[in-house]
Amino acid sequence: MGTSERIDLEHGGEEVAEAAASVEKAFEGKEVPPWERQVTVRSMVVSLVLGVMFTFIVMKLNLTTGIIPSLNISAGLLGFFFVKAWTKLLAKSGMLMQPYTRQENTVIQTCVVASSGIAFSGGFGSYLFGMSSDIAKQSPEATAQDIKDPGLGWMIAFAFVVSFLGLFSLVPLRKIMIVDFKLTYPSGTATAHLINSFHTTEGAKLAKKQVNLLGKFFSFSFFWGFFQWFYTASDGCGFSNFPTFGLEAYKNKFFFDFSTTYVGVGMICPYIINVSLLVGGIISWAIMWPLIDNKKGDWYSAKLEQSSLHGLQGYKVFIAIAMILGDGLYNFIKVLGRTLLGLYNQFYRKSLGTSSSSSDPNSPPLLSYDDERRIDMFLKDQIPVWFAVIGYVVIAVASIVIVPHIFPQLKWYYIVVIYIIAPALAFCNAYGCGLTDWSLASTYGKLAIFTIGAWAGASQGGVIAGLAACGVMMNIVSTASDLTQDFKTGYMTLASPRSMFLSQVLGTAMGCVISPCVFWLFYKAFGNLGIPGSAYPAPYALVYRNMAILGVDGFSALPQYCLTLCCVFFVAAIGINLVRDLVGEKWAKFIPVPMAMAIPFYIGSYFAIDMCVGSLILFIWQRIDKVNADTFGSAVASGLICGDGIWTLPSSFLALAGVKPPICMKFLSRGVNTKVDGFLES
Amino acid sequence: MGTSERIDLEHGGEEVAEAAASVEKAFEGKEVPPWERQVTVRSMVVSLVLGVMFTFIVMKLNLTTGIIPSLNISAGLLGFFFVKAWTKLLAKSGMLMQPYTRQENTVIQTCVVASSGIAFSGGFGSYLFGMSSDIAKQSPEATAQDIKDPGLGWMIAFAFVVSFLGLFSLVPLRKIMIVDFKLTYPSGTATAHLINSFHTTEGAKLAKKQVNLLGKFFSFSFFWGFFQWFYTASDGCGFSNFPTFGLEAYKNKFFFDFSTTYVGVGMICPYIINVSLLVGGIISWAIMWPLIDNKKGDWYSAKLEQSSLHGLQGYKVFIAIAMILGDGLYNFIKVLGRTLLGLYNQFYRKSLGTSSSSSDPNSPPLLSYDDERRIDMFLKDQIPVWFAVIGYVVIAVASIVIVPHIFPQLKWYYIVVIYIIAPALAFCNAYGCGLTDWSLASTYGKLAIFTIGAWAGASQGGVIAGLAACGVMMNIVSTASDLTQDFKTGYMTLASPRSMFLSQVLGTAMGCVISPCVFWLFYKAFGNLGIPGSAYPAPYALVYRNMAILGVDGFSALPQYCLTLCCVFFVAAIGINLVRDLVGEKWAKFIPVPMAMAIPFYIGSYFAIDMCVGSLILFIWQRIDKVNADTFGSAVASGLICGDGIWTLPSSFLALAGVKPPICMKFLSRGVNTKVDGFLES
Repeated sequence: MGTSERIDLEHGGEEVAEAAASVEKAFEGKEVPPWERQVTVRSMVVSLVLGVMFTFIVMKLNLTTGIIPSLNISAGLLGFFFVKAWTKLLAKSGMLMQPYTRQENTVIQTCVVASSGIAFSGGFGSYLFGMSSDIAKQSPEATAQDIKDPGLGWMIAFAFVVSFLGLFSLVPLRKIMIVDFKLTYPSGTATAHLINSFHTTEGAKLAKKQVNLLGKFFSFSFFWGFFQWFYTASDGCGFSNFPTFGLEAYKNKFFFDFSTTYVGVGMICPYIINVSLLVGGIISWAIMWPLIDNKKGDWYSAKLEQSSLHGLQGYKVFIAIAMILGDGLYNFIKVLGRTLLGLYNQFYRKSLGTSSSSSDPNSPPLLSYDDERRIDMFLKDQIPVWFAVIGYVVIAVASIVIVPHIFPQLKWYYIVVIYIIAPALAFCNAYGCGLTDWSLASTYGKLAIFTIGAWAGASQGGVIAGLAACGVMMNIVSTASDLTQDFKTGYMTLASPRSMFLSQVLGTAMGCVISPCVFWLFYKAFGNLGIPGSAYPAPYALVYRNMAILGVDGFSALPQYCLTLCCVFFVAAIGINLVRDLVGEKWAKFIPVPMAMAIPFYIGSYFAIDMCVGSLILFIWQRIDKVNADTFGSAVASGLICGDGIWTLPSSFLALAGVKPPICMKFLSRGVNTKVDGFLES
Repeated sequence: MGTSERIDLEHGGEEVAEAAASVEKAFEGKEVPPWERQVTVRSMVVSLVLGVMFTFIVMKLNLTTGIIPSLNISAGLLGFFFVKAWTKLLAKSGMLMQPYTRQENTVIQTCVVASSGIAFSGGFGSYLFGMSSDIAKQSPEATAQDIKDPGLGWMIAFAFVVSFLGLFSLVPLRKIMIVDFKLTYPSGTATAHLINSFHTTEGAKLAKKQVNLLGKFFSFSFFWGFFQWFYTASDGCGFSNFPTFGLEAYKNKFFFDFSTTYVGVGMICPYIINVSLLVGGIISWAIMWPLIDNKKGDWYSAKLEQSSLHGLQGYKVFIAIAMILGDGLYNFIKVLGRTLLGLYNQFYRKSLGTSSSSSDPNSPPLLSYDDERRIDMFLKDQIPVWFAVIGYVVIAVASIVIVPHIFPQLKWYYIVVIYIIAPALAFCNAYGCGLTDWSLASTYGKLAIFTIGAWAGASQGGVIAGLAACGVMMNIVSTASDLTQDFKTGYMTLASPRSMFLSQVLGTAMGCVISPCVFWLFYKAFGNLGIPGSAYPAPYALVYRNMAILGVDGFSALPQYCLTLCCVFFVAAIGINLVRDLVGEKWAKFIPVPMAMAIPFYIGSYFAIDMCVGSLILFIWQRIDKVNADTFGSAVASGLICGDGIWTLPSSFLALAGVKPPICMKFLSRGVNTKVDGFLES
């Protein structure tokens, strides 16, 4: 999946990697169906249903905080559950044609991840929505050529022409990455282990229990969302505005907002991420912003609107950007360094021609039974190189012709340049992700914002050009690493590369239609997308737009001392990362992650409190009953996330139909309450 | 403990009676300390602490709904826990003089129940508070002689002169009741079993677990109360006014008010009681009151104030009274019948002189080891008859002199008449309670209201005379049955009758000071005691006052058709009870209890919903894990009740100190909210 904001949160998966000794021995009797029978109609139907569901969830996360945890495990669990239920039903009625295999499970998993991935890489919470007038209003001096409002048609078209390139760019290199380099791909490996375990008898029982629990928390979370709805007659009403720690803390965005989604996200994310968010929130909202607010009239004009980037809001946005860029740069250099070192070792080893001098002492000199069987299956179904090359070129040409029609600011030669460089970057990202589980797609996207934005220049609509270029770049790089990750999963579950590829293509196609539609639903149903303080502030939209403005205009837009503060935080982000890497794993888990600290700088720490509540629940659960907590924790979390996420579907339909909640749960200070009571009586 | 409103809820205890075969064998090695060493200083200190705590809880329940569950088990558990912790500490420091025995545990239990019992029988939620001007305002035409406002001094004096008589009246009969008649006393037996079990090794372990759980839910409940406090800046704010089922239902008092107290009470009360409450609430607030409200201007004047008894409020209060009286009358006759039948059998058997023709075929012809040892201990320490007679006469004389000084309306000769009849009624009640676990103290009190009220007449201040007479009667009858119940507990735990009696006397003395003080704290801290719709409506205060008015004035005060409706419900209450008794246990548990149905008639069904939530929790728990639910259910419930109850202590101090909650959580309809938002912006 996607970008640094996301993969960061998936690090928990690493521990699972490479556990069981010989998995394939357990599956020895079972036949592996040919690739055409791995991509079945039923698997595509289930993928479509789950794709829609996860798109809703990802879209909601996109538009609320931009923090998206790994949903692979939920997708795997639910996929297994749906098809299993389906096959059981058919088996009972005697109509079952084909048993449910782990290959088919992998196909569903791949397809769902590909389709819901578009909700993220499509930029509906970041670059694409950053072009809209809603966001532009909050940034300084936007002319008509710096604005492109969302439209269902062009969004679908754009998604289609940019999302498939990544798939074709790395297909020829799959054998090198998976078989020769033996890259780890922690998330992909973990998913494969999960799917393999489901298809053993013991595993199926456990999966049933997990699905059961997931279902319970799904229902709870859904009905909680439903219940909350009744009390949110207008902005500032309801549980999501509950001043849990008092009204003063509420004004500084410290409150528990009763969002089961983020409690669930907090249960999935590592403790240190949640703590980082809280630390970031405290540093910014409890210390820095009040201090800067005191300088009102001195550092910046006191007459500015609250949302003006020349005032306090500017400090919030740009300091957050500085930290994100600092963290991104550090990790870019780090992962690139490891990539190059890894490649050097690979070729150095190859040129020596021996496996005994391998840089990886753990790799066995002879192939195990598992590896033998997996390589066998992996190499059986080939995808011809000419197919990949022709695919890439055809889509690239289509894209070069169509994209400038959507964004006149993005000239065709910019796109040509991107498409020439992209495969190399896609390879770097896929390789780095294989080593570290850390996808840098959004960092490559930011690179495109700055380079293309600066190249186009302000007078040529550099802001839109930069944001669009970001989209083109991010999509290629992100889908490329996703596909390679899926190849690893397929490799370990004996799924054919052809079926994986086909499933990715179909999933991506689904996503290109579903995601813009879901975004459109949110956009039409909830009128105030992207407004700070509303239910859907879409924080990254403003951040991305301002990065583009920075790239085009330089630092002229910043209020006083803001650049100095940005530099401090930029350097601090690099420094903290450096310290994290130097002190070793033991201490690193106590040092906050700068990327996570930056997010609450802009939107406040209410979701950080939710996530810490999630952490706390998991922590207490682990203290009481470690085995159950580890087995069922992610099922509970998935249930919480999915239930609340799916509630947004009916809630958006209610909003579209003009059905408004009947009650407002309002929080007033005692003084104001007395006034209101007086007003109501009169 | 107290009256029919209370004992009704204790019926669950019956099942526990007489389970283990030979309890005393297990305690064979353990020495029983002499009676002076059963009433220790530490036991009195613990009793005082628990007495204060339970008085707060009972007072809160008194003033909110008047429904008071049996707190014997909580008192037993907490008493055990405190002294055990204390002795453990001393044992560690080597200073332990005397081990903790079950006799001492029984003494604590008895003392706590006696002291917190005054909070109920003192009438702070019923007859005593019903004399105040706050309640009189809601009743028609009260002159100065019909009002007696609460005062700390006279309340303590009154409690002292009327509370001890009951103790002396039945002391001489204890051997007949316990040893000869072998009365069951289900609650007393259950408490004895609990205490006996605590003092076995296995039982102590279980008690520790129960106390642990009680502590957890105590803390949760306490902090929940604390948390809620912040959001209740004024009336109608906060969780206790949460329109859980919408604003329309809220107006008709259907909502879940998040009170952990009543969730806990619901877990202790039998399912049928909770369902009865809900059925009563639905019949009255969802069907009858809206229908009667439609007759406004026809049946009664439309210009009346909402709280006027000549309007809708009158129907609510008098129909509730009719049902309570109907239920009371039925049970009075039933229990009296069984008492007389039981007595007849006892003496008939005695006159035959054989035990083989015993009317109770279950009683063994020869005494078991347990019985032998128990009777031995029970008869060892005698309380001389002359002591009891002198005590009764001295206190009666003091009372006859002092009470008319407090209530000039209650002439001394009324009191003499009461004191002559009282011992007979006290015996009837104690005997009936021993058979059925059903104390009719409040029914005898109501009898006194009507007879003395009518005797005094309206011009002589019959209302106050009736209410005061009710107090005198209730106290005697209630403490008499409590004492006999405690003798049964003491009999089964080998506690000496002397120590039980002393403990009761000391506990009653404590209660006579604690209860008026706690009531005074509530009265001063929360300004609006007894006002309908407030946090402390004290529903029974108005009900008792109106019964007195009925007794004095007859039915002239009732609005149109109200008398007809009252008759219908009076007969219905008797009929339902008759059906309940005729259909047998199997079906009776599906037929609602009229007494319980009557309570929500007046105050609404919000607490019934809390209690049904408690039932539901227990029901689901029992379905999932019956053993644990049965073992720990009452500990959880006690924790919930006690935590929230104790929170009223700091909350009343906060109110006295003038510290007001900072926030109002308000619920507005969408339309009103828009208006308020407009008002706040302007």
